[in-house]
This record gives sequence, structure tokens and C-alpha cells, in this order.
Amino acid sequence: MRIALLGGTGDIGEGLALRWAFHTDHEVLIGSRDPERARTKAEEYETELDSRGVEVSIKGFENGMAADRADVIVLAVPPYHVADTVEAIADRLDGADVLVSPATGIRRDDAGFHYHAPSAGSVTKLAADAAPADVPVVGAFHNLAAGRLADLDADLGIDTLLVADDEDAKETVRLLAEGIEGLRALDAGGIANAPEVEGITPLLINVASNNDGMHDLGVRFE
Amino acid sequence: MRIALLGGTGDIGEGLALRWAFHTDHEVLIGSRDPERARTKAEEYETELDSRGVEVSIKGFENGMAADRADVIVLAVPPYHVADTVEAIADRLDGADVLVSPATGIRRDDAGFHYHAPSAGSVTKLAADAAPADVPVVGAFHNLAAGRLADLDADLGIDTLLVADDEDAKETVRLLAEGIEGLRALDAGGIANAPEVEGITPLLINVASNNDGMHDLGVRFE
Repeated sequence: MRIALLGGTGDIGEGLALRWAFHTDHEVLIGSRDPERARTKAEEYETELDSRGVEVSIKGFENGMAADRADVIVLAVPPYHVADTVEAIADRLDGADVLVSPATGIRRDDAGFHYHAPSAGSVTKLAADAAPADVPVVGAFHNLAAGRLADLDADLGIDTLLVADDEDAKETVRLLAEGIEGLRALDAGGIANAPEVEGITPLLINVASNNDGMHDLGVRFE
Repeated sequence: MRIALLGGTGDIGEGLALRWAFHTDHEVLIGSRDPERARTKAEEYETELDSRGVEVSIKGFENGMAADRADVIVLAVPPYHVADTVEAIADRLDGADVLVSPATGIRRDDAGFHYHAPSAGSVTKLAADAAPADVPVVGAFHNLAAGRLADLDADLGIDTLLVADDEDAKETVRLLAEGIEGLRALDAGGIANAPEVEGITPLLINVASNNDGMHDLGVRFE
């Protein structure tokens, strides 16, 4: 399968790109608003993988070009760029594509980090509202610590939660997620259930910052 | 230590009562608005523990009487009874007591279960607002499945998150929580961080109801 990581030059995009390239046979494309930056990062990822004995081609493109070539498009951009990123690639999408939304809204105050939902209710819903009606959106990969994901020496042993209103699209993303060693994908229901899923991310930061020796946390349902 | 479980005749109260009586030397008191009901349930818990070779005295009282006798008072009541329960026992409390709030607001719709915060922002904050100014409140035990907790044959192997603005009170509850075998207590910061903690509960229900073979879920941070 061809996976485009839009915003694939950022932290979470890097982690997902490296993991998919390392653990699976999927073809990974890096997207950025700046195609030169996408190509530079793609080469960095190739070098990192090559140093681990994995010879793989990772190509960088402007976001629209990456989306055009891919079956699954991950919106690995900050929450405030989700809607405009989807709108910028909308004419490259069709009903055979799957959009994946891993972003979450976070607000910080003196006490800690808090879930800050956009007015759509969740970032996943924001992406779904911006997407063409026939293109399914799946919320996933919200609660993965980027540093741990990008460190191919780090064991995961954690879960990621999926929310979607299209069961086929959810299944596609479930298989992609479980291709990553140590990652278990669990179904958290429809997009209406996204706020509680996205809200785990600030909680993980709060727990890590209040307990000695805990960092880059993930979550496991047992 | 003496622990009063107000609403200790309900599911989560039963689980905590049995676990503390089974795993620790703390004295457990059962509180209810109806003292006769409290005494009946206390006897049931004694019988259950006796069948497992644990001889322990558990007494039942009207909520105010239970609170009066205890060092730590757990508000194991539905969220809409938290404020009136605290107000009803307020004159029995002093600065040496610790109140514990395990309740969470949950709303159900067609998609699943959602966190429904009271206007105070969280149920823990609601309890803190209702409590006398010198009585510390700790949010804890939100994400424990009652059935699993009350089944002394069930392994836990899960975490509970603590939120409080009083570090001494938080430490008291941390020690109580970790007295329960298989339960790890993690610090999630101040009461302002309670919404994300309380929001795990509806998420656990959504995950359990959407994945075959998962039920009575807890969460572990790794």
C-alpha cells in the first residue's frame, strides 16, 4: 500500500514513516508544503533505515503530489492546519482514498495540559468536515509519543485507538497500525467518540511530567 | 487507617471495600443514606471475605456517622449526588480528613459513551467546591471496572490516576491505592487536570464495547 505522510517532516510523521518503512513493505511518501524540505527529510529517513540494513526508497513531494500518489493519506500536521491541508488536497482525493487524522488539540495552563477541542468537537471531526463527502476519515495514532515512535530501538508494547464512521476504512488503518511491531489497534467506535480518544494525549503528558522516570508514555488497555 | 466508603453499597464502593479489607489492614466502614442498608451490605462483605479465610469486621453506618469515624472518606456515589453528599457530612469533617472523589460524569448517545463534565469542570472539582475550605479532596479510582475490582479472583495489573492540589492528601491516597495488589497509583497533577482523568472512564466503555473479548477494562501507562 502507498501511504502519504503529509507533514511527514514533523515529529509524528517521522516516527510513522520510519516505523512503516522498517516493519512493513508499504511504500512511504513524505509530503510537505515545501517539496524541497520533503525530499531532504525523505533522504534523512532513507539514511537512518540504511544504517539499520533496510534499503528502501522514500520519496518527498509537495503535499498535493504526495496525496495524489497514495492510497492512505495521514494528516500529520498541527491541528490548526488540518482543515487547510485537507482543502488544499481535496481535488486529489477520491472515494478509494482513506484520510487518517492523528492530531489532537492541546492547551497548556499552569496546572498542566488539557484537551482543547476545536468547535467541530474533535480534530478528527474537523478533518471529516473538511474532506469531500465520499472520502472516509479515520482518527488514529493520537497517543503515540513521537520520540519513542521514531526511535527504532524502542519497544512499543502499546495501543492506538481507532475512530471512524466507515468500517472498511477503519479496517484498512487497523491493518496498517498493526503492521508496526508492538502496536495494537483497538476500535473505539465512531468519530463522535473522538474527543475522549484525542484527550488521552494531554493526559499522557501530565502523567509523564508528574511521575519520576516516566517519559514518552503510551497507553495499554487491559 | 479508617476508610469510610459513602455509597459503599454500590458497585465501586463494594469493590474498594472488598479490596482494602482483603489486601490491607485498614479498617473499612460502609456508609449509606440508609444505615440499615449499610449494615446489610457490610455483613455481605464480611461473609464474602470470611469465605476466603479473611476474618474482618466491616461496620455499616449512615453516611455522616461513617464520615465522622474515618480518616479518609471516599465519595462512592453517583456524580449528581457528590455535592449533596459532601454538604450532608460537612460538619463532620476537619482538616485532618481526606475526601476522595472517584465519580465521573458520563453521557450516552447513539455513538457511545462520552465524558460529561459538570459545570464546575470536573466531578473532582465539584467535590472540592462543596467541601469545607480546609478539607483536601483527591480525585482517584475513576477508571476501575467495578466488577473486576469486586472479584477478588481477578488480577488487576492496572493504574489509577490521582489528581489533587494538596500533596500530603495525595500521598495518603497513593499509599491506600497501592495497598491494593496489582494497582499502581500515578500522579496526574492538580485538580485542574481532572477532566482528562475522568474522561478515561467513558473511553474504557467504548473500547470494551467495540472489541471482541474485552470487558471490565483498565488502563496502564507504559
